[in-house]
Amino acid sequence: MSIRIAALRAARPTSSRPKVSLPQLSRRAYSTPSSRAAPSYKRLGASAATGFAIALGYTIYHGYNESKQVRCDAAPLVDAVDTYGYPWLPVHAIEKDDPKNPMRIRMANWVKSLQDHIVNTMEEIESASEPNSFSPSSESPKFLRDTWLRKEGGEGSSCVLAGGRVFEKAGVNVSVVHGSLPPRAQKAMLPDHPSLPEPIETVPFFATGLSIVIHPRNPHVPTVHLNYRYFEIEDPQNPNEPKAWWFGGGSDLTPSYLDEDDCIHFHQELKKACDKHDSRYWPDFKKACDKYFFITHRGESRGIGGIFFDDLTTSSPINQPPVSTMKHKTKEDLFEFVKDASSAFLPAYVPIVYKHKDRKWTEEERRWQQLRRGRYVEFNLVYDRGTKFGLHTPGARVESILMSLPETARWEYMSPVGAEGSNTREEELQKVLKNPKEWV
Amino acid sequence: MSIRIAALRAARPTSSRPKVSLPQLSRRAYSTPSSRAAPSYKRLGASAATGFAIALGYTIYHGYNESKQVRCDAAPLVDAVDTYGYPWLPVHAIEKDDPKNPMRIRMANWVKSLQDHIVNTMEEIESASEPNSFSPSSESPKFLRDTWLRKEGGEGSSCVLAGGRVFEKAGVNVSVVHGSLPPRAQKAMLPDHPSLPEPIETVPFFATGLSIVIHPRNPHVPTVHLNYRYFEIEDPQNPNEPKAWWFGGGSDLTPSYLDEDDCIHFHQELKKACDKHDSRYWPDFKKACDKYFFITHRGESRGIGGIFFDDLTTSSPINQPPVSTMKHKTKEDLFEFVKDASSAFLPAYVPIVYKHKDRKWTEEERRWQQLRRGRYVEFNLVYDRGTKFGLHTPGARVESILMSLPETARWEYMSPVGAEGSNTREEELQKVLKNPKEWV
Repeated sequence: MSIRIAALRAARPTSSRPKVSLPQLSRRAYSTPSSRAAPSYKRLGASAATGFAIALGYTIYHGYNESKQVRCDAAPLVDAVDTYGYPWLPVHAIEKDDPKNPMRIRMANWVKSLQDHIVNTMEEIESASEPNSFSPSSESPKFLRDTWLRKEGGEGSSCVLAGGRVFEKAGVNVSVVHGSLPPRAQKAMLPDHPSLPEPIETVPFFATGLSIVIHPRNPHVPTVHLNYRYFEIEDPQNPNEPKAWWFGGGSDLTPSYLDEDDCIHFHQELKKACDKHDSRYWPDFKKACDKYFFITHRGESRGIGGIFFDDLTTSSPINQPPVSTMKHKTKEDLFEFVKDASSAFLPAYVPIVYKHKDRKWTEEERRWQQLRRGRYVEFNLVYDRGTKFGLHTPGARVESILMSLPETARWEYMSPVGAEGSNTREEELQKVLKNPKEWV
Repeated sequence: MSIRIAALRAARPTSSRPKVSLPQLSRRAYSTPSSRAAPSYKRLGASAATGFAIALGYTIYHGYNESKQVRCDAAPLVDAVDTYGYPWLPVHAIEKDDPKNPMRIRMANWVKSLQDHIVNTMEEIESASEPNSFSPSSESPKFLRDTWLRKEGGEGSSCVLAGGRVFEKAGVNVSVVHGSLPPRAQKAMLPDHPSLPEPIETVPFFATGLSIVIHPRNPHVPTVHLNYRYFEIEDPQNPNEPKAWWFGGGSDLTPSYLDEDDCIHFHQELKKACDKHDSRYWPDFKKACDKYFFITHRGESRGIGGIFFDDLTTSSPINQPPVSTMKHKTKEDLFEFVKDASSAFLPAYVPIVYKHKDRKWTEEERRWQQLRRGRYVEFNLVYDRGTKFGLHTPGARVESILMSLPETARWEYMSPVGAEGSNTREEELQKVLKNPKEWV
């Protein structure tokens, strides 16, 4: 395992593919898809638009053109347009980041490359596992790569694995969308995003993000979630200088059974990525994670934590220099942090998967996992902002929004499993969920 | 089966038990539980308070005293008090309704008697069925009868069956609660309840209701839901003359497979109960049911309908005399309607259970049922007012609120089961859910 892990720790996707030229998102001539085809493009799929919820406000999801649905490896040929009315060309994921490009291109590239890398890694885990009764085929399970174009402009791809040997249900989704944000929607965002310009008129926005939810089959392998996103309010006069922008994201772990070493490992990897950039990030983002992923009506956390942040921009309070010797952070600094934090996902999670994936489990352990998944459903449907916004948005792509739900879940009335005073491993987890711990 | 059904059609509970004297809810001396024990009292359980959600506003659920939890057949001896500070005595369910009593006593009596009757009938169905792999015991499955007292006054009982031969999970719940309704909560209720006095001060309220959700095991037996409730704003100067009051309720059917005869039968039974009282009830309440139980983000109904009404009071628009020859309805008339409508539950549902309960099913049919249950969870957690109010209420009894959720549910990304154009029985149901039908 150690060699594998070492390889995974070099988690930033490294290139083994030919570079392709970077298309601009706007003000460019339309070229036919065939003229843009390139190996890496094909491998990533046609990357057409999806409405996967990344909590960016309710206008984002409106108006998906389901009839434009295409599968990966099919070059989409639709009449989508960009913010400025020009034909929309899907972003090509390339592996060399060019600082001369606008951040929206760079972040879209980043999340696409990472999506590709994570999907490939998960398929590797599947192929490194024996067929079993849930997935008896000798052929190793693969992700379904589903891509869309959004008529108004934008693209996305939902990569979904169901019925795996290790992963019961997993979604790894990218969206690259833009649209118009009316003043009402801006006002709703203002409290969390004070750098927004005064909401007086409808403004164009751009948003891109990567969202992952993985529900493994084995009750001893934790569920994991990741979301990293970039948002900007565009300036039509100056497409390369947005009027406002921020990053958001995080990752958190949801085990059914507590393994303290796992918790420490997961948090340590995220902490390393945070500490590399700012010693204030880790304590702040860990606390924000515990606060956000809380099932209020149960009085318990969804999982054992991780990191969560929103509105990360150069003017964010956490990025103000605390002492005169510290210099102001640049947008580049924040992007580097986001790259490191999102890159920490595989080294934080994959070793835990390998550690437990071949463990035997009992029916009782599976039952407890199903009950925990019931709580996961409760959190996502009752509290998660992205899910709620998405579901209440006319035209939202429900399949993508609800991909985060587990394949199966369970509810029992006054379940005896994990009950107070039972002195069981189930109760052990329950106690930690009621009193979030500092793991590192 | 016909004899059984005939018996069920006489659905109003008929007495075969000794009458007991009717205790008042207020202004009465405290007597020890032993002096109140009577056969029917024992059979119904100690009927202590539960916070089961009946959509009556968020103040109702506050402050349940879990430590006072008692089981049925145990006479509770707790320091609960009524609206006026007097010791709270659980309502005895008696089977003779006395019009001299205030409506809150009469309705509480009614729902308790009906609960008892329905629980017994369902246990009869269980005992009339053979043990199976899910419920292999030779002993026929029984409901767990769980009762509470609410410290501030009020009582309830949750009767729950899990792991039955026929019923996978079933809850039959009564609550009889009162409390204080601050102006803010009254204002929130005003749009739906114009008979409320002007919200200027905190007012005492009383609420009682019966709630049922039944999830059968066999995919060919539909899920069913029922809720009937009575609400009043009390007048402390005149406990027997509330300042405002209304009835609400309904019942609806959620099949996984469409059986048109079932749909017609279910609706016919409810329509009969409606038509007996007012020809306007059925069309109005059927439409309201289709409107309420709608999963907006899926663009489909939760089930195939039934009836739903709220704010049913003598001043409700639907109860205004349409022509000069018609006389105004009295509160007594409305109570009679509620009794008939709720009594229609067993004759509407039980024949459907008997018709399908012994049918064989395939794994594929079970999978579709689980997917449909996923939609049921989506509706209840995202849209159902009672559930939402309950979950957002500090101190709510979550176990009772979420008892409506199925034991198991399933979500698949872009599931092929029931997909458009598949020409399957699953798609047949889907079509009806997208275009609600008039069944009678």
